[in-house]
Amino acid sequence: MSAASGDSRLGAQFAFLNEADRLKSVLRATTLVDGSRPENSGEHSWHLALYALVLADQAGPGVDINRVIRMLLIHDLVEIDVGDVPIHSANGLAHGSVDTMAAEAKAADRIFGLLPPDLRDDLRALWEEFEAAQTPDAVFAKSLDRVQPVMANLMSGGGTWTTYKVTRDQLESRVGVKIARGAPALWEWVRARTAPFFG
Amino acid sequence: MSAASGDSRLGAQFAFLNEADRLKSVLRATTLVDGSRPENSGEHSWHLALYALVLADQAGPGVDINRVIRMLLIHDLVEIDVGDVPIHSANGLAHGSVDTMAAEAKAADRIFGLLPPDLRDDLRALWEEFEAAQTPDAVFAKSLDRVQPVMANLMSGGGTWTTYKVTRDQLESRVGVKIARGAPALWEWVRARTAPFFG
Repeated sequence: MSAASGDSRLGAQFAFLNEADRLKSVLRATTLVDGSRPENSGEHSWHLALYALVLADQAGPGVDINRVIRMLLIHDLVEIDVGDVPIHSANGLAHGSVDTMAAEAKAADRIFGLLPPDLRDDLRALWEEFEAAQTPDAVFAKSLDRVQPVMANLMSGGGTWTTYKVTRDQLESRVGVKIARGAPALWEWVRARTAPFFG
Repeated sequence: MSAASGDSRLGAQFAFLNEADRLKSVLRATTLVDGSRPENSGEHSWHLALYALVLADQAGPGVDINRVIRMLLIHDLVEIDVGDVPIHSANGLAHGSVDTMAAEAKAADRIFGLLPPDLRDDLRALWEEFEAAQTPDAVFAKSLDRVQPVMANLMSGGGTWTTYKVTRDQLESRVGVKIARGAPALWEWVRARTAPFFG
C-alpha cells in the first residue's frame, strides 16, 4: 500500500501512518515503570502526551498544551531511521551531536515526506520547533521528555542511572537543567526524590 | 510513591501517570502492521492520536481535533483493570456487553480517582463522552478507533479477521458502520481495500 495507490491524498496519509507504526519497534534505554522490559518509542510518545495533559498546570505563560501534545506525538518519529540515542550513552556525547542531528534531519525528510505536502510542512515545522527548543511550547515539551525517564528510573530502582553510572552532577546538567527550564517546580519535586539514588 | 507522598497535587498526578504506564502491558488481539507481535494498548493509543492529527480533514463539521486527540489518549486506560475486549471475540458479543461496561466503569472510578479532583472530573467526563459516542468529537474518535485495526489487518495479511473467522457482513456491522458514522469517505476508501480478504 504505497503512497501512490488509490486516492493519492488518503494513500499518502496512510503510507505515513503505516510507516509510523515502526516506532513501536524502536527500543529505548529506559524500561517500563515496573522494570519488566525496555520501553518503546511509540508507547513513550503516548505516555508523554498524557504527561502534557495531566501536568498542564506546570506549564509557564504562553504555553498551548494542545500544541505541546501534537509536538510530543511526533517528536520521536525520526527514530524509525536513527534509533533512540540515550541521553546518558557515550558519556552524554551522542545525544544532540552533529552526526545525530544530521541523521535525524535526513530521517525527517523521508518520513514526513510520505505525507501530502500541507501536512508534511506542518508536521516537519512542528518537529523542528521541538528540536530547536526555543518557543514556550517546545521548552515545556522538552521538560516533559526529560522528566518521564527520571520517573521511570525512580520507580524501577535506578534504571539507566545504574546502566550508565550517572553521577548527581551529570543528572543535573544533562537532565535537571532542561526540566527546570520549562517546569521549575516539577524539577524541584522530582529532584528531591532522586536524592537516595545519588547518596 | 503513593498519591499521599510529598506535595499532594503533584503526588496524585504522578500516581496516575505511573499507574497509566501499565497500559503498555495490556495486549490487544491486533498485531503491529508488520505482524511481528501483538500491539499493546499504550502504543495503540499513541497511534490513534496520530491518526487524528493526520486524518483531521476527514472529520465532520463541529469536530475539535484537539479534544479528539485528548479523548484518544485516555480512551483505553480502563483496560489496565479490564483488559482489551476484542471487537470480534465471543462472536462479537463481549465488546460493549453490560458486564464489560460495568467493569470498565469500576476501573474508571479507580484509575481516574488517582488524580486530583479537578483533573479526575475532567478526564472521567471525557472518557464517558467517548464511550457514549454521541457528540461529534466522540463519533469521530470512535471511527478512528475502528479504522486503525482494519489497517493493521490489511497490512499484516488478515490479522484478527483470520483469528476470529470474520465474515464480510460482520466486518460491515461491527466495524464499517461505526467508521462510516464519523468518517464516511474513510470507510469507503478502506472498505475497497478489504475486498480481497472477503472474496
